[in-house]
Amino acid sequence: MVRLRLDLGYDGTDFSGWARQPGLRTVQGEIEQALGRILRVDPPGLTVAGRTDAGVHARGQVAHVDLEADVELPALLRRLAGVLRPDVRVHRLSVAPAGFDARFSALSRRYGYRVGDAPGGVDPLRRRDVLWHNRPLDVDLLNAAAAGLLGEHDFAAFCKKREGATTIRELQRLDWVRGPDGVLLATVVADAFCHSMVRALVGSLLAVGEGRRPVEWPGEALARGQRDSAINVAPALGLTLEEVRYPPDDELALRAVQTRRVRDLATS
Amino acid sequence: MVRLRLDLGYDGTDFSGWARQPGLRTVQGEIEQALGRILRVDPPGLTVAGRTDAGVHARGQVAHVDLEADVELPALLRRLAGVLRPDVRVHRLSVAPAGFDARFSALSRRYGYRVGDAPGGVDPLRRRDVLWHNRPLDVDLLNAAAAGLLGEHDFAAFCKKREGATTIRELQRLDWVRGPDGVLLATVVADAFCHSMVRALVGSLLAVGEGRRPVEWPGEALARGQRDSAINVAPALGLTLEEVRYPPDDELALRAVQTRRVRDLATS
Repeated sequence: MVRLRLDLGYDGTDFSGWARQPGLRTVQGEIEQALGRILRVDPPGLTVAGRTDAGVHARGQVAHVDLEADVELPALLRRLAGVLRPDVRVHRLSVAPAGFDARFSALSRRYGYRVGDAPGGVDPLRRRDVLWHNRPLDVDLLNAAAAGLLGEHDFAAFCKKREGATTIRELQRLDWVRGPDGVLLATVVADAFCHSMVRALVGSLLAVGEGRRPVEWPGEALARGQRDSAINVAPALGLTLEEVRYPPDDELALRAVQTRRVRDLATS
Repeated sequence: MVRLRLDLGYDGTDFSGWARQPGLRTVQGEIEQALGRILRVDPPGLTVAGRTDAGVHARGQVAHVDLEADVELPALLRRLAGVLRPDVRVHRLSVAPAGFDARFSALSRRYGYRVGDAPGGVDPLRRRDVLWHNRPLDVDLLNAAAAGLLGEHDFAAFCKKREGATTIRELQRLDWVRGPDGVLLATVVADAFCHSMVRALVGSLLAVGEGRRPVEWPGEALARGQRDSAINVAPALGLTLEEVRYPPDDELALRAVQTRRVRDLATS
């Protein structure tokens, strides 16, 4: 048996999210089907670092798959590029180091959320991954509000409730920059995210950035510790999983054991 | 009467090019229809800096339109964003300075051509404006071959023949860089371009970059001065009009007179 690491990206627009679902086009479903077809086996199961929702994109997604037979990696990579539609690409295939688990070995996930606030709209070539916000946003307000959310907290205010799952997360980074093209990019890093967390964080910050809520508002919602219906979950289209970080090879197995223990019922 | 300058962009994928054609969806047709509908007049005629072909994109396209009535510009910009589909956006509307002609006042056009050569394919979020080239490209070879094409020449070897139109152009810049994401970007600047010129230049260079032709090959084709069927015209999807440059306001009218005289029958 060999465990392969897949580094991949997708345009989430035409997918019903990552996770395989009968009758729906999903990223997991497409890649598993493609692997099964190329290798002439039953579709093998993929394990992924970030189970993205419908409409969410990925540039630095990581998954692993266990295969019975040895495979020639460059040939398999080329075959995947031929079989998959161009809205999902496996960029790199490698034999996973011992102890590697795409989900449980991960140290952190980095997401980007992109928003354009020019009155004329966003660059049409970026309309699938940049949200158009039809009111001017103040980057200083966005950053001031974001600073109040950093650190380890119970993020229940920003999570969809799930039975038994912990909502304690460590938000390691959350800041905004306006690029030379005027597009605002939020960079959001945490050890892991609960369901809809990045989009709820961004939604609360946009309300501050446009001047509709005070700077303290997202931090106050965090402190109350329960889902607040006044917080809009920002649309999926602006969100992209950019990177998953792993520890050095000799710590992969230990990290996986620790993560499983801490977050046994959590989504990642 | 007032002349407006429109700065605009589009994803060319679902357009039959810029120029209005009966029964086809074109960028000119869509914007003229939208202006007519918003202003409740017959669709006014647009004049454009670069008449792009089917499938070619624009980020810095410039056009002008003459309107009978005075209009409130911010309101018109918002209305256009509401009426136009998101694959075409008017980013800025302004009253044109005296003597301004979007086509004939232009000093130069800058195009970008983007190519990815990773064996796994291109980032799915860029698949509409980055061509996938399934062989590794050498950026030094690309640049060495490009250097042999700079300057004022008869570019007939790279132009679709058109009755009476001059094919003498000044190629001011043509170079390649590989970005941090691995994507190769060719920047191509000329006073004006004849039909299919950028794509034929890029096609000839790609043959050098992948090692199939010697570095001197594009320059030799240029020197022969006639269309060469061995030169592949690169696909439209990698091509984007990035910028149109104009002289200072007090030279706009003179520039337009000069350009009309030199290139009366030429396409730009």
